[in-house]
Amino acid sequence: MLNGPNLNLLGTRQPEIYGSTTLADVEEMCRAHGTTKGVEVTCLQSNFEGQLVTWIHEARGVHDGIILNAGAYTHTSVALMDAIKGTQMPTIELHITNVHAREAFRHHSYISPVAIGVMAGFGAKGYTLAIDALLGHLEG
Amino acid sequence: MLNGPNLNLLGTRQPEIYGSTTLADVEEMCRAHGTTKGVEVTCLQSNFEGQLVTWIHEARGVHDGIILNAGAYTHTSVALMDAIKGTQMPTIELHITNVHAREAFRHHSYISPVAIGVMAGFGAKGYTLAIDALLGHLEG
Amino acid sequence: MLNGPNLNLLGTRQPEIYGSTTLADVEEMCRAHGTTKGVEVTCLQSNFEGQLVTWIHEARGVHDGIILNAGAYTHTSVALMDAIKGTQMPTIELHITNVHAREAFRHHSYISPVAIGVMAGFGAKGYTLAIDALLGHLEG
Amino acid sequence: MLNGPNLNLLGTRQPEIYGSTTLADVEEMCRAHGTTKGVEVTCLQSNFEGQLVTWIHEARGVHDGIILNAGAYTHTSVALMDAIKGTQMPTIELHITNVHAREAFRHHSYISPVAIGVMAGFGAKGYTLAIDALLGHLEG
Amino acid sequence: MLNGPNLNLLGTRQPEIYGSTTLADVEEMCRAHGTTKGVEVTCLQSNFEGQLVTWIHEARGVHDGIILNAGAYTHTSVALMDAIKGTQMPTIELHITNVHAREAFRHHSYISPVAIGVMAGFGAKGYTLAIDALLGHLEG
Amino acid sequence: MLNGPNLNLLGTRQPEIYGSTTLADVEEMCRAHGTTKGVEVTCLQSNFEGQLVTWIHEARGVHDGIILNAGAYTHTSVALMDAIKGTQMPTIELHITNVHAREAFRHHSYISPVAIGVMAGFGAKGYTLAIDALLGHLEG
Amino acid sequence: MLNGPNLNLLGTRQPEIYGSTTLADVEEMCRAHGTTKGVEVTCLQSNFEGQLVTWIHEARGVHDGIILNAGAYTHTSVALMDAIKGTQMPTIELHITNVHAREAFRHHSYISPVAIGVMAGFGAKGYTLAIDALLGHLEG
Amino acid sequence: MLNGPNLNLLGTRQPEIYGSTTLADVEEMCRAHGTTKGVEVTCLQSNFEGQLVTWIHEARGVHDGIILNAGAYTHTSVALMDAIKGTQMPTIELHITNVHAREAFRHHSYISPVAIGVMAGFGAKGYTLAIDALLGHLEG
Amino acid sequence: MLNGPNLNLLGTRQPEIYGSTTLADVEEMCRAHGTTKGVEVTCLQSNFEGQLVTWIHEARGVHDGIILNAGAYTHTSVALMDAIKGTQMPTIELHITNVHAREAFRHHSYISPVAIGVMAGFGAKGYTLAIDALLGHLEG
Amino acid sequence: MLNGPNLNLLGTRQPEIYGSTTLADVEEMCRAHGTTKGVEVTCLQSNFEGQLVTWIHEARGVHDGIILNAGAYTHTSVALMDAIKGTQMPTIELHITNVHAREAFRHHSYISPVAIGVMAGFGAKGYTLAIDALLGHLEG
Amino acid sequence: MLNGPNLNLLGTRQPEIYGSTTLADVEEMCRAHGTTKGVEVTCLQSNFEGQLVTWIHEARGVHDGIILNAGAYTHTSVALMDAIKGTQMPTIELHITNVHAREAFRHHSYISPVAIGVMAGFGAKGYTLAIDALLGHLEG
Amino acid sequence: MLNGPNLNLLGTRQPEIYGSTTLADVEEMCRAHGTTKGVEVTCLQSNFEGQLVTWIHEARGVHDGIILNAGAYTHTSVALMDAIKGTQMPTIELHITNVHAREAFRHHSYISPVAIGVMAGFGAKGYTLAIDALLGHLEG
Repeated sequence: MLNGPNLNLLGTRQPEIYGSTTLADVEEMCRAHGTTKGVEVTCLQSNFEGQLVTWIHEARGVHDGIILNAGAYTHTSVALMDAIKGTQMPTIELHITNVHAREAFRHHSYISPVAIGVMAGFGAKGYTLAIDALLGHLEG
Repeated sequence: MLNGPNLNLLGTRQPEIYGSTTLADVEEMCRAHGTTKGVEVTCLQSNFEGQLVTWIHEARGVHDGIILNAGAYTHTSVALMDAIKGTQMPTIELHITNVHAREAFRHHSYISPVAIGVMAGFGAKGYTLAIDALLGHLEG
Repeated sequence: MLNGPNLNLLGTRQPEIYGSTTLADVEEMCRAHGTTKGVEVTCLQSNFEGQLVTWIHEARGVHDGIILNAGAYTHTSVALMDAIKGTQMPTIELHITNVHAREAFRHHSYISPVAIGVMAGFGAKGYTLAIDALLGHLEG
Repeated sequence: MLNGPNLNLLGTRQPEIYGSTTLADVEEMCRAHGTTKGVEVTCLQSNFEGQLVTWIHEARGVHDGIILNAGAYTHTSVALMDAIKGTQMPTIELHITNVHAREAFRHHSYISPVAIGVMAGFGAKGYTLAIDALLGHLEG
Repeated sequence: MLNGPNLNLLGTRQPEIYGSTTLADVEEMCRAHGTTKGVEVTCLQSNFEGQLVTWIHEARGVHDGIILNAGAYTHTSVALMDAIKGTQMPTIELHITNVHAREAFRHHSYISPVAIGVMAGFGAKGYTLAIDALLGHLEG
Repeated sequence: MLNGPNLNLLGTRQPEIYGSTTLADVEEMCRAHGTTKGVEVTCLQSNFEGQLVTWIHEARGVHDGIILNAGAYTHTSVALMDAIKGTQMPTIELHITNVHAREAFRHHSYISPVAIGVMAGFGAKGYTLAIDALLGHLEG
Repeated sequence: MLNGPNLNLLGTRQPEIYGSTTLADVEEMCRAHGTTKGVEVTCLQSNFEGQLVTWIHEARGVHDGIILNAGAYTHTSVALMDAIKGTQMPTIELHITNVHAREAFRHHSYISPVAIGVMAGFGAKGYTLAIDALLGHLEG
Repeated sequence: MLNGPNLNLLGTRQPEIYGSTTLADVEEMCRAHGTTKGVEVTCLQSNFEGQLVTWIHEARGVHDGIILNAGAYTHTSVALMDAIKGTQMPTIELHITNVHAREAFRHHSYISPVAIGVMAGFGAKGYTLAIDALLGHLEG
Repeated sequence: MLNGPNLNLLGTRQPEIYGSTTLADVEEMCRAHGTTKGVEVTCLQSNFEGQLVTWIHEARGVHDGIILNAGAYTHTSVALMDAIKGTQMPTIELHITNVHAREAFRHHSYISPVAIGVMAGFGAKGYTLAIDALLGHLEG
Repeated sequence: MLNGPNLNLLGTRQPEIYGSTTLADVEEMCRAHGTTKGVEVTCLQSNFEGQLVTWIHEARGVHDGIILNAGAYTHTSVALMDAIKGTQMPTIELHITNVHAREAFRHHSYISPVAIGVMAGFGAKGYTLAIDALLGHLEG
Repeated sequence: MLNGPNLNLLGTRQPEIYGSTTLADVEEMCRAHGTTKGVEVTCLQSNFEGQLVTWIHEARGVHDGIILNAGAYTHTSVALMDAIKGTQMPTIELHITNVHAREAFRHHSYISPVAIGVMAGFGAKGYTLAIDALLGHLEG
Repeated sequence: MLNGPNLNLLGTRQPEIYGSTTLADVEEMCRAHGTTKGVEVTCLQSNFEGQLVTWIHEARGVHDGIILNAGAYTHTSVALMDAIKGTQMPTIELHITNVHAREAFRHHSYISPVAIGVMAGFGAKGYTLAIDALLGHLEG
């Protein structure tokens, strides 16, 4: 599970939009949810595009899939798109908010064309739904 | 659960893209999944935009939320957008395929700005994930 | 007088935008206003684009003009445009709200180029103003 | 009632489009119509954008509302938009012709987003309809 | 042979553009032409997008191909595109007029990318040419 | 019958798209088809835009109509458009493939607005269908 | 001869682009040139759009044609376009510089569609050429 | 210091956006600030584009620089751009509000490309900051 | 004097737009006008873009300037632009009709940015005006 | 005070555009200016987008406001926009050059919509003006 | 090696951009370079689009690959694109200058999508580099 | 020689597009090629935009030129553009694949306008061709 720029602010940033659950809470919740499903969930966050690219590379052969909330880089990063395409890691694109109901520039995603699918708007709960979706995909 | 145009072809239409599960299978699966969650799921499908609008109207006061796979009307129907906005029904936008990885005109949705959130690309399994997401939203 | 999709919600849909007068109230008001002007007003509403097209066809030779609030179809329906052009029915385009002050996609109308004129933003009262305008046109 | 550039040509300019009623006729008709409604109508015309802006400023505290046919400035004047917004004068946007059926650049209006509503295409009669609409709005 | 919205007006709608042959005449002419070619031609018309979608579905396994004059829906209906793609019915797109010489919005077709080919501008005669083209395709 | 650039490759160029019939075959087929219809068909091909323009000029007073497959020049040549408009030669625009299902730049044609009609996607058979269409037009 | 905003700076404004001839020089040159052609040339300049509109109105019945260098208003003034169209005054659009070789926003003119023709890039000499062109037009 | 259209409303127009300081207050404040810096500040305001153009012309040889808040004309006036370019007056573009955070059409300025620099969003205080910036530029 | 595609039709092509003077007439008129001005005018016409490019090359060192009516190639030919730029031949762009009042694609010219200036809309007389303008330029 | 990519080149990079003052000079000047105003100014520079995002986060609760010259990231970084919005740090957008007079892609800023205001074009002096503006804002 | 329009001017056309090496020099240099590599290089140049198309056709079965500097036709010729695609000749797109650093319309190439690769900006030396690249490709 | 994001995957990422040569192979090949040419080649790779910017800064005074394969950052990084422009390092833009034949967003490069030239589509061999090109440029 990779979180991108500003997601470390979770719970303290605009709580009326993003809720008050912190990133640590979310990560704990995901690891716990993984345990009930019999899988191990690793959680990383970075504000650096290059770091996220590198982590996607490092996931090859180590993890079975990626849940990626690339935050702002979703809309600007061709490098993340290429990293997913280059490593062929099964990836689910996740957004806490419904990005399609926000500013127009958030309607475009470089991640979507190389992702399995997209989930947006379900708050912190979206992360566990994404784990379920990823497991469903890997089983399928 | 409302399905729009051509979703009655499910299982017979381009199975390499949409899978071989029929709409009846999906509906049965959803009703069963609803039962395990303690909710009743009603399933309707129409190829008529006006019928889908009308069903959204009729859902007010009867159902707690809508899972809407509006198919092609997602991209062309202001009327569906207005129906959801007018009735204030909590609605999840669903797509079987990852529409953002297909033709450019499928990247725009009139439903998204008035939906709680969007799920796309998880196949038939997306419907049960959407039920979970809707329940999560209604509890939240 | 033809009303399009979601106008059956009038009075119950977003009353802060559309007011609390119901469609039945509006229709009654229009028939009454017609009577004072010595004309008969027929009122129909449908959520189906095809039905509205058909009613425009059927108006030929029966009615002298149409007041058309096509709702969402204003912005998406070439079929309505063609129906008005094909039947040459004198038509006034009506909107309860000032559509030009709302979302950009509501600024474009397929009806306008084939209508006598446009009225938007005068609430339920717009319907009776439109009757006056249509009578003025037919007298002119 | 404010008329913008070239409306002084009314009755002599392209009568096949604008009719043969002169601006003086229209103004007389409006004052008379106002009298029957118990209101006083003041009529001004200028070819200068700055003059129209100034008259809108001067209307504050003197008049209850404005009927504005800004002519060509409708499509190019941010200054008029700001004048209406800045003074908060209730304003109805009026056009003699159906501007939406003419050149594409006439489909955009800087006035519409700050006006109560829009009337277009009803010829000279539109002015008295606009008075009725404004009175309806002020009563509402 | 499927005809879409407003084509029931044929012969009575803008005869200077569409000619005076009625839809019944065209259908009769096509059935006769089919007979001379040893094939049976079934003719249907609807103003409802959803009905046209449904008829395309129902053609599977019953008919060998479709001649589709979708009228105004040509330019706005993703649902028809999906119906043709989903059923894989060999379809010829037909227009009575040369749509590419008319308004810009008539230059785009959602049908073309999933059709065998396009014919436009040959009047009522286009229908029999389309039958010949479809037979040529099916033999090829 | 005028064929434009690269059509001399017919039968040898991308046969999976254009078929294996050579241009000589097509021309022979057309002349034969013309004979059965009682008309003489002259066939010319050039890779030069200026040559095609000149041949259109020379057709005035000699031929009754033109079947023009301008190939790539369809999308780039204002000169061909002006030649057809200037000579008023009745012209049918022809494409072997369904150009509307290919790259976006092939969706625009400078020929269409000045042609009688358009035929695209019917392979080599399209040429004889175009002869029938032209004859139909000339008789009409 | 009407000159618009900033043309009073002629000869002092960016002489490397506009030359060192002053507006008074140009006007004198034009009046002299008119005399040799047997016509009287009246010259006016204003920085106000509204004034130029008014002068065009006033030219009706007094002058035979207008040579209009509207300067910056060329690119922004619908009001000038409407004034020319409304008065039907034969008008030649003039620019001292080759506006089509400058910034992109100077490539569009609201004057051109209602002018007889356009002259741009011939410096001060353009004014006398425009007089010749106007006389040629009036004789034609 | 030149202020454009609607800035005479300052203090009375939408005080929640523009503050309650009147234009007279601002002008007094600027003259005072100028005095402390040893320079004389002249303040003018007009709602007429042509007047602003003329004042810029008249500033040549009289003033050392211009602080220009062109208000709405910022976004529509090529004439102001040409006046600054033509007179080569050092000009600072000023806006009371952060225009880049408002409607999209306010993001474009015809003044910026010919100005020394831009200041926006600092309220009435922006005027004295602009004086400092202009002095800094003139000293530089 | 270079004339491009379709200008050989002059006098026979759409005389209501282009007049009835033939190209031979125009050429004769220009040579005569040249004689009165003491210059020799050479006239060439081709429908081939490549020929026009070649003639521009050949003009270097032989002619003092070019009057170029590139017809349709005005709007599509980068090669002509490069030929003028590469040879640095002083060139006047000429159009018989007012191209800026015709279709939008005729508003763009690849010639304008490398020409001295542009003349459009003055009919056959434009050619002699262009000679005067060119001589004025060469003297300047 | 945060400086973004390439600003470490200040004084050595294109001095004709950016001047010869180095970044160290600017930082020293700002700290000194801060001292005279009774505030402490901290200066940081990075070429990494992620680092700038992180520093904005870290400024919360430590600094009262940010002067941000994001350099090239101004035009491409949604992450910086989200960081400012997420931390609600009062931020002034600064540019040394007048970015609106440079390439078109530099006219758009992701920072502007979330900044207090913008300053551009005042060279190194802009930094101290920005300190004054920020203090003015914090006092306001 | 095919050179397009205006490349015959090489060495005499804008030498500050294109250098002073003539086309004959370049061709000689390429033939010599070919000899050292054991291949024969044939060099042709034309200003006619149709001639270049024809030469590409004629290269089939005679040459192993093409180095194409299509000059201005790079940006406008679909016919060249189709010729390369139709003949499947391995083609390297070459430009003497860095076209991506020049006017925007030179950034688009119809050749690129069907070429092996692109080289731009290396002057006359680019031709020999292209020979090396083509040989590398043919060996690969 | 600077390689950007994801180029560390070379040889393992989509070998059908990028080949099976690893980055280490390429770097070794380039150093060897450099040796034969008498120059030393230093090779660096990073997934961080900021790191690439910094390395370009550090190259000043140390290296004679840069071969930059910026990968995905080619299309999104204004910062790299500014780094090259700011340091004035002679830079060759390199791509392994023919980016102009891939997705539209890969057709735009922020590097091209500040590079000497561009090479794309020649696989790993492109790197040694780029060394030759750079040496050619430095000698020129």
